[in-house]
Amino acid sequence: MLLCRVVGMVVSQQKEAFLTGKKLLVCETLEEEDRQKFVAVDMVGAGVGSEVLVSRHICMEGDTYVDDRIVAIVDSVSG
Amino acid sequence: MLLCRVVGMVVSQQKEAFLTGKKLLVCETLEEEDRQKFVAVDMVGAGVGSEVLVSRHICMEGDTYVDDRIVAIVDSVSG
Amino acid sequence: MLLCRVVGMVVSQQKEAFLTGKKLLVCETLEEEDRQKFVAVDMVGAGVGSEVLVSRHICMEGDTYVDDRIVAIVDSVSG
Amino acid sequence: MLLCRVVGMVVSQQKEAFLTGKKLLVCETLEEEDRQKFVAVDMVGAGVGSEVLVSRHICMEGDTYVDDRIVAIVDSVSG
Amino acid sequence: MLLCRVVGMVVSQQKEAFLTGKKLLVCETLEEEDRQKFVAVDMVGAGVGSEVLVSRHICMEGDTYVDDRIVAIVDSVSG
Repeated sequence: MLLCRVVGMVVSQQKEAFLTGKKLLVCETLEEEDRQKFVAVDMVGAGVGSEVLVSRHICMEGDTYVDDRIVAIVDSVSG
Repeated sequence: MLLCRVVGMVVSQQKEAFLTGKKLLVCETLEEEDRQKFVAVDMVGAGVGSEVLVSRHICMEGDTYVDDRIVAIVDSVSG
Repeated sequence: MLLCRVVGMVVSQQKEAFLTGKKLLVCETLEEEDRQKFVAVDMVGAGVGSEVLVSRHICMEGDTYVDDRIVAIVDSVSG
Repeated sequence: MLLCRVVGMVVSQQKEAFLTGKKLLVCETLEEEDRQKFVAVDMVGAGVGSEVLVSRHICMEGDTYVDDRIVAIVDSVSG
Repeated sequence: MLLCRVVGMVVSQQKEAFLTGKKLLVCETLEEEDRQKFVAVDMVGAGVGSEVLVSRHICMEGDTYVDDRIVAIVDSVSG
């Protein structure tokens, strides 16, 4: 999983069914080198500015797949 | 998922069954650094020039696999 | 999926069962920057010199897994 | 799997159910070039400073998914 | 799959059950640019110095997962 900051939100009308009603957030890795930017489905109530943990794997949720998703809001990172 | 622009289309006669009848579009990530180019199956009616969201995972659709695929047409990105 | 050219062939006697009888081809991405080279299982009758589409995911085929595989021979790319 | 050192720990209240009760550790690859940093679920009793082996795939554990995870504590690496 | 050379071996007492009794080998890609180093489970009797083909996907073997694994010993590569 990657430590990221939420930096934006995607609006889309025309999309696959598994994305209906989901919040699509643009995430940017906190790492300064080789910074990556991608879109993840919010699962935990994150918003722009949140520091989050993102899983970049696909998994099943009942009958549908959920792609890259925000799985935790980070309170703190030690060490 | 990656924010991409559709920049081309692939024509192929000799292909695996799961690709039959699918539109194969060349996508390029919008990120300026470390830009990636790859081919995705269109699931939402995208075409050359569309700004899209692409899932780079594999999933089952009924009895067949669908690879990298375009899952949404992007209307806008805020933030 | 990645647009690649087939540039070589791998010969191996000692291998896992799922590779028995499969043609193992060395593929190189067409992208000039960050060119990748890897080995894929041929599923469509490709050979050295072919321009192909390669899926870099794993999937089941009956009871066995098939890894990175060549899923199409490319006739043309527009755009 | 990647050879990593555990360099930190993540604290999070608001998270998906599959992460409840799991230790979330920040891992950094030992490789000096192209060093990667990410968060993995501890499965083997690792802590900050441990040299570990990390699997960056997703798998099922009973009814839930487990993401990137620490699968071994490394005693030594020869060669 | 990636063409690699086996360059070392990992010793670990404390590990997940799926790794018990498996040989864990450090593999380095043959590619000179962007060389990658990682650990794979040996499935074919490879050892330090072997030129091998490595699958970097996860798959099921009976009831357990097997991660990155060495799937073939390479005799020769043409082209």
